[in-house]
Amino acid sequence: MALLFFLVYNMVGDNMNIVDIINKKRNHQELSKEELTYAINSYMQEETKDYQISALLMAICLNGMSEDEVINLTEIMLSSGDTFDLSSVSGIKVDKHSTGGVGDKTTLVVAPLVAACGLVVSKMSGRGLGHTGGTIDKLESIENINVNLSREQFIKQLNEINVAITTSDVNMVPADKKLYALRDVTGTVSSLPLIASSIMSKKLATNADKIVLDVKVGEGALLNNKEDAIELAKIMVKIGKHFGKETIALITNMNSPLGNSVGNGLEVVEAIEALKGKGDSNFINLCIILASHMVSIGKNVDIEVAKQEVMENLNSGLAYQKFEQMVAYQQGNINNIAIASKTLSYNANREGYLNGIKPLELGNYVMKLGAGRKTKEDIIDYGVGIVLNKKIGDYVYPGDSLATIYIKNEDVDTSPLDDIFIIEEDEKEKDPLLYDIVK
Amino acid sequence: MALLFFLVYNMVGDNMNIVDIINKKRNHQELSKEELTYAINSYMQEETKDYQISALLMAICLNGMSEDEVINLTEIMLSSGDTFDLSSVSGIKVDKHSTGGVGDKTTLVVAPLVAACGLVVSKMSGRGLGHTGGTIDKLESIENINVNLSREQFIKQLNEINVAITTSDVNMVPADKKLYALRDVTGTVSSLPLIASSIMSKKLATNADKIVLDVKVGEGALLNNKEDAIELAKIMVKIGKHFGKETIALITNMNSPLGNSVGNGLEVVEAIEALKGKGDSNFINLCIILASHMVSIGKNVDIEVAKQEVMENLNSGLAYQKFEQMVAYQQGNINNIAIASKTLSYNANREGYLNGIKPLELGNYVMKLGAGRKTKEDIIDYGVGIVLNKKIGDYVYPGDSLATIYIKNEDVDTSPLDDIFIIEEDEKEKDPLLYDIVK
Repeated sequence: MALLFFLVYNMVGDNMNIVDIINKKRNHQELSKEELTYAINSYMQEETKDYQISALLMAICLNGMSEDEVINLTEIMLSSGDTFDLSSVSGIKVDKHSTGGVGDKTTLVVAPLVAACGLVVSKMSGRGLGHTGGTIDKLESIENINVNLSREQFIKQLNEINVAITTSDVNMVPADKKLYALRDVTGTVSSLPLIASSIMSKKLATNADKIVLDVKVGEGALLNNKEDAIELAKIMVKIGKHFGKETIALITNMNSPLGNSVGNGLEVVEAIEALKGKGDSNFINLCIILASHMVSIGKNVDIEVAKQEVMENLNSGLAYQKFEQMVAYQQGNINNIAIASKTLSYNANREGYLNGIKPLELGNYVMKLGAGRKTKEDIIDYGVGIVLNKKIGDYVYPGDSLATIYIKNEDVDTSPLDDIFIIEEDEKEKDPLLYDIVK
Repeated sequence: MALLFFLVYNMVGDNMNIVDIINKKRNHQELSKEELTYAINSYMQEETKDYQISALLMAICLNGMSEDEVINLTEIMLSSGDTFDLSSVSGIKVDKHSTGGVGDKTTLVVAPLVAACGLVVSKMSGRGLGHTGGTIDKLESIENINVNLSREQFIKQLNEINVAITTSDVNMVPADKKLYALRDVTGTVSSLPLIASSIMSKKLATNADKIVLDVKVGEGALLNNKEDAIELAKIMVKIGKHFGKETIALITNMNSPLGNSVGNGLEVVEAIEALKGKGDSNFINLCIILASHMVSIGKNVDIEVAKQEVMENLNSGLAYQKFEQMVAYQQGNINNIAIASKTLSYNANREGYLNGIKPLELGNYVMKLGAGRKTKEDIIDYGVGIVLNKKIGDYVYPGDSLATIYIKNEDVDTSPLDDIFIIEEDEKEKDPLLYDIVK
């Protein structure tokens, strides 16, 4: 595919000029596939410069993209690198992607749960940057686990136990890596067409048959309003279908951290609890909803039928066994998960309803404890984090422990938490977990 | 002023982040003076990168700028370098600026004409890039002329004969130079607030007391529609007044080349003819209108009174004498102006009304003859160019000479001219020369 990319670039590039393309987008005109190809490919070859692409990205942020443009951009990005060949894996491959939230460890539960239902979950995941670790970072808190499976290992494991979670050694969507790095420093992240093509090009490169998307909305998410989230979901579902992959998207709440733990090892422990049917009901419910939709589209059965199968596999312990099996296949020691040995209790200093826990701020607090990376080079402390001892809506009294902080060093300042936990006299109405479904 | 710039930058920069500033502008919020200062100054210090400023510039192109933002941006750019001190020059200093057009040699006529009326015209000009030479390039077609006057020479000449045209050795508005180079390659040139602050920061740096702007509109100009030109003029007039400089702007037609010559030496010859009252009436009229407005605001007299004085000085030959005097002061030999010795006639190949001469295309044609620069490093041929032998509206017959091409090499392709000279059966209505005046 990289060769095709090169040929197409050289075919179309002759009469094009990046400034004309930028001007066209600035003037609200639709870019042709050839123009988008020229822009991206000449950028990959460093003929077009960062400062030109950032101007084009800003014009896209402000003037939007048509459906054709987004689909073309996705295809061009996909063609910039290699795709993963899953043809030698038998069974229906179902993938799941979350747009990201604080405390989001659903993949650790959903992947084995759906695999227990007989579908193949071939999960290629990443490391995290910013306020929270990625799925791979979380898994790495399990002693000795191998999250760098070779292609052969990955395919063998999928054929034998239906589930594997690994980083990728394939050069997938290098155009997205380059564009994302630029968007991050030029105020051009939050554009729905750019987000959609970034996510979907990566999903398409991993080559699952069906895709369930978890589009998070709220204070702790990339998107803050429901309308934008639904719009993003619609674009992504259209892209998925265009490329022949059945895709559905759930619009879910991210106004407070997901589950009761934030931090890599602590989140693995919470995921294991959930696989055993214990823990925060909101988190377990979200896992069940996601898994049910994956099973529903994966097996082409009604959502209620799918949910029944999911519940059976969760309650029977089969889902947890699948997780154990996966960890064992990947050489991990499930009995040794990194958890910091020192803890601090953060207590309420007033009486009232716990009406909110600011997710982004909590994520950043936990990052500063050492659980996340500010820059790619930072080393993660897998054991640190926070466990929430009260749920949103609980009535709390001074001295009640709101959270247990797992720390490495004694000198931890808990005062930022005073602004993160919102305690008020009157109870606030709770947000729903699931806002909408886009098919 | 450069020191002040540095101090202000270091005072305000501590808590600012360029991505926040870009996001703010993208989200249609007004940037504070401190934020604009940070953006420009950190860019000048190369802390903020090209790709960040180009994203900000595109956001400005699409979301605009408030009046306060434009004034602040102008002031920040002005403060990025040095200004020219004219306090030792006695008399009222009046400046004139054109937004640029093909065949625009008005400065060569207007500067001595206004000086003949007793005002000081202290003109700092530039070289051209693109389809046409700058005023300095045109002057340099006069043998031996010195267009690199020292500050002392410039001030001495102004005190003695009221007029001087030179390049500047002062580091004026380096921020504009850097921003303009970036805008040129990122599709962010045509933003009215950016154009206004770019022009006005340079005008303010040269420190004249009063400013007359010639905002050109049409196919051969930066702006193609009258509404934009009027809007640009209004912003620039506001900026001028804010900084205590009386400013007026004329909105003039640039749908066809100005005057009958395009090319450096040829345009100097045309300017001399005009100073002697001969030549293209459109061109002479524009010079008279511009000069009259300069005299009107410079002497604070009614425009009709000013026009009468201008006409007297033109008809008496005093204006031409002033030009001769200026050339002599700057060591130029007015009897030796570079004009190519070889000529070609370009003849009409059909009968009809000459309804148009595409200005931009003609400018580019003349540039390719050698009269302009494609890149800064190109060397200009001062003698080449084109003289138009017919006016817009003339009825022409096959074989009539439409233009005389002054060439260096024999192998000149005249076929592009077939698309530049528009000959049609029906006569088209002519555009007015002056569209509007903004005070």
